[in-house]
Amino acid sequence: MSDLFEYTLRLGDDALIAAQRTAEWIAAAPQLEEDVALGNIGLDQLGQARSLLQYAGSMDGRTEDDLAYFREEREFRNLQLCELPNGDFAHAMARLLYFATYQHLLYDELRGSADETLAGVAGKAVKEVAYHVDHATQWVIRLGDGTAESHRRMQAALDALWPYTAEMFESDELVRRLPVAVDPAALQDEWNRRVLAVIDESTCTRPEASYQHKGGRSGRHTEHMGFLLAELQHVARSHPGATW
Amino acid sequence: MSDLFEYTLRLGDDALIAAQRTAEWIAAAPQLEEDVALGNIGLDQLGQARSLLQYAGSMDGRTEDDLAYFREEREFRNLQLCELPNGDFAHAMARLLYFATYQHLLYDELRGSADETLAGVAGKAVKEVAYHVDHATQWVIRLGDGTAESHRRMQAALDALWPYTAEMFESDELVRRLPVAVDPAALQDEWNRRVLAVIDESTCTRPEASYQHKGGRSGRHTEHMGFLLAELQHVARSHPGATW
Repeated sequence: MSDLFEYTLRLGDDALIAAQRTAEWIAAAPQLEEDVALGNIGLDQLGQARSLLQYAGSMDGRTEDDLAYFREEREFRNLQLCELPNGDFAHAMARLLYFATYQHLLYDELRGSADETLAGVAGKAVKEVAYHVDHATQWVIRLGDGTAESHRRMQAALDALWPYTAEMFESDELVRRLPVAVDPAALQDEWNRRVLAVIDESTCTRPEASYQHKGGRSGRHTEHMGFLLAELQHVARSHPGATW
Repeated sequence: MSDLFEYTLRLGDDALIAAQRTAEWIAAAPQLEEDVALGNIGLDQLGQARSLLQYAGSMDGRTEDDLAYFREEREFRNLQLCELPNGDFAHAMARLLYFATYQHLLYDELRGSADETLAGVAGKAVKEVAYHVDHATQWVIRLGDGTAESHRRMQAALDALWPYTAEMFESDELVRRLPVAVDPAALQDEWNRRVLAVIDESTCTRPEASYQHKGGRSGRHTEHMGFLLAELQHVARSHPGATW
């Protein structure tokens, strides 16, 4: 498996699994307007996933659907942050703030990649995720700086997901030796600056983590990933080719 | 409650409940491409629902969210066809064929309504549902004229939903006395012509119904509606105002 395949899969799986969790929220959003916003965000994430999985698949003769529906859990390369259950709406917005801010910095760098396909996907996606960041930022501030109850929930969500953020910036041999890749370690300072500014404005306390969860990039996932994949994959697997 | 309010609610509730069922499919579509298509269809339906519920709400001081999240089951005016569970993918496409063809004929007429708001919503929506009809048509033909198994499933879906189609064309005092409304009875012949042409091309047999299910327009719903509303409404109801 080539480095480029593996790297593209990481980006594609992040987007795919994030899209799946966003889709689960759509049917239960607390406002119709939010329902529409989440629907659009989910479609953006899914579009990124498709472009990236198509590209990865083109390297070894698989389709986007082969990669999405017919891989086992250990073959998925997404961040654990993306696969965690939705929890309440504050959790959804905390995750979106953390993840979309990371994606925005990553895609912004990747636009300059010598790999034209990755650069092209990133150039389109960077505009989409800028909107996701805005959306999450508005909600985190609104809930954090809202009622006592909304503040408590927002703080709890920011704290609960914080231990999953370090994985985003983990560097490894692959990203260091692949010239067209972005080393995510270089993004962490700016990510901290942006995210902590939002948290400060929300009047929440900056989270701290004594332990960092990692492993998604090498296929080690949380206990929630199996249920997510069952939902994502069961129709395609029970009807291969979707033609019965 | 004015006739115009009641009529607008019928159209809005059809779109809202259809959007909810579409959203449930998104996380489990058999192809990523189909996932995107269903996502866009769901967002179209939700957009129609919002426009119509905003308009209805403007007549009695309620918001779209009040109407979506804080009515009881008996107050919903949608067709039973829209609330039935998704079943398999063939059922989803049979329902979309039946419902979108109806919506297309309805909105096409409603564009000429003397009510400018309804005419405006219809003018935008008619283009959206034309795509929904195309999408469903392609799948019904592909599955009906596919393998023995896909044919069997497509036929079963067309048959199972057929008894819920007559309700779409039921005329009543309200639509006859409200000048800006479209009497759906006038749409039935053309709907039959279009839908039966697709069924014929799919090599499926034309369904017949010995019994017709009706009641949605007066708030009588199937046993599935309560579960759908629980999913739709529980977050908004447990956090009124979505601000905790």
